[in-house]
Amino acid sequence: MSGLILHEYGRSGNCYKIRLTAAHVGIELERREYDIMKGETRTPEYLRDVNPNGRIPVLEDGDRFLPESNAICFYLANGTKLIPDGHFDQADMLRWMFWEQYNHEPNIATMRFWLRNVGLDALTDAQRMQIKGKRDAGLAALDLMDNHLDSRKWFVADQFSLADICLFAYTHVADEAEFDLEAYPSIVRWMERIMTMEEHVSLDD
Amino acid sequence: MSGLILHEYGRSGNCYKIRLTAAHVGIELERREYDIMKGETRTPEYLRDVNPNGRIPVLEDGDRFLPESNAICFYLANGTKLIPDGHFDQADMLRWMFWEQYNHEPNIATMRFWLRNVGLDALTDAQRMQIKGKRDAGLAALDLMDNHLDSRKWFVADQFSLADICLFAYTHVADEAEFDLEAYPSIVRWMERIMTMEEHVSLDD
Repeated sequence: MSGLILHEYGRSGNCYKIRLTAAHVGIELERREYDIMKGETRTPEYLRDVNPNGRIPVLEDGDRFLPESNAICFYLANGTKLIPDGHFDQADMLRWMFWEQYNHEPNIATMRFWLRNVGLDALTDAQRMQIKGKRDAGLAALDLMDNHLDSRKWFVADQFSLADICLFAYTHVADEAEFDLEAYPSIVRWMERIMTMEEHVSLDD
Repeated sequence: MSGLILHEYGRSGNCYKIRLTAAHVGIELERREYDIMKGETRTPEYLRDVNPNGRIPVLEDGDRFLPESNAICFYLANGTKLIPDGHFDQADMLRWMFWEQYNHEPNIATMRFWLRNVGLDALTDAQRMQIKGKRDAGLAALDLMDNHLDSRKWFVADQFSLADICLFAYTHVADEAEFDLEAYPSIVRWMERIMTMEEHVSLDD
């Protein structure tokens, strides 16, 4: 695989998980940055040529464009050791990736975006009304992860997989959404295992 | 595959998509019904034995339990013609399945649940404040699907796949969330193609 272009906003955990996957499988990505705060992914050109859904990340591979972060990770890792063997373990890995997008990202990542990028004072009333619900759901997500990791090194099949990468992306910056990770010792140990791997790259790399 | 038990709430589109997948690949499922309005998936026993996330659907296969509807569909369909060949097409199928859980289900399915199961009058203030946002996002999701289907019979790779099944589940009941499907002629034709397939089963079967 070569000539791949990642259309991204570098600080997004959804974009970072793709770069982390690429680092683990040894794929080089050309990076193209968009300022989402200036609406650069909502222009008529972006909607027509890159993603009709108006979001990053998108992977460009020749004349094809692939949106959705976890689908892009699956594409880059298909056929590598980041995806376990066996139908049950593959599905269990996807289970955690779907859970990440439904139960984790809309709470922890959205809170981080609201606090860091938008700012509390600039939130709409409808957004402000959701803060308590997102806070509670984010805490429940971290609880569930910590309990799962109490007796396991990795999320699925006793091996490092895309499930770990996709969950690591927003978990390791959950403090930026004002979640206190020190309350989750199994998560902290799991993050340390990931961050000390030889292939690891950080969000700021 | 045999002896599989689907822990479900039958009217849920997330549970229906699993039964539809099973019908297409010829797998029998034993069905176990929970009344989610009575909290039957939040009991200590359910959280301990079936799903710590307190949700349906969950597939029980021997001593293993698999939550997350789209992951369960992938498990049942792995190795069948419901998953296209080729790494790009497989990722593109997952792209639509992740999009369904992030952009479609939280808007169209949640609106359907709020209107049918909870009732407008019983919504919390925080929920009521989200109605406009969910309505707009649901319309945008249907627009995007209709545009995609303008020039295609199926979502991915010119073949019927899990992407179609997972998107069909809540789209075909979008009228129960007060979305007018007549405004989307390409979606209507796509739904007709699905509903006239020999293997098709309906939500009420």
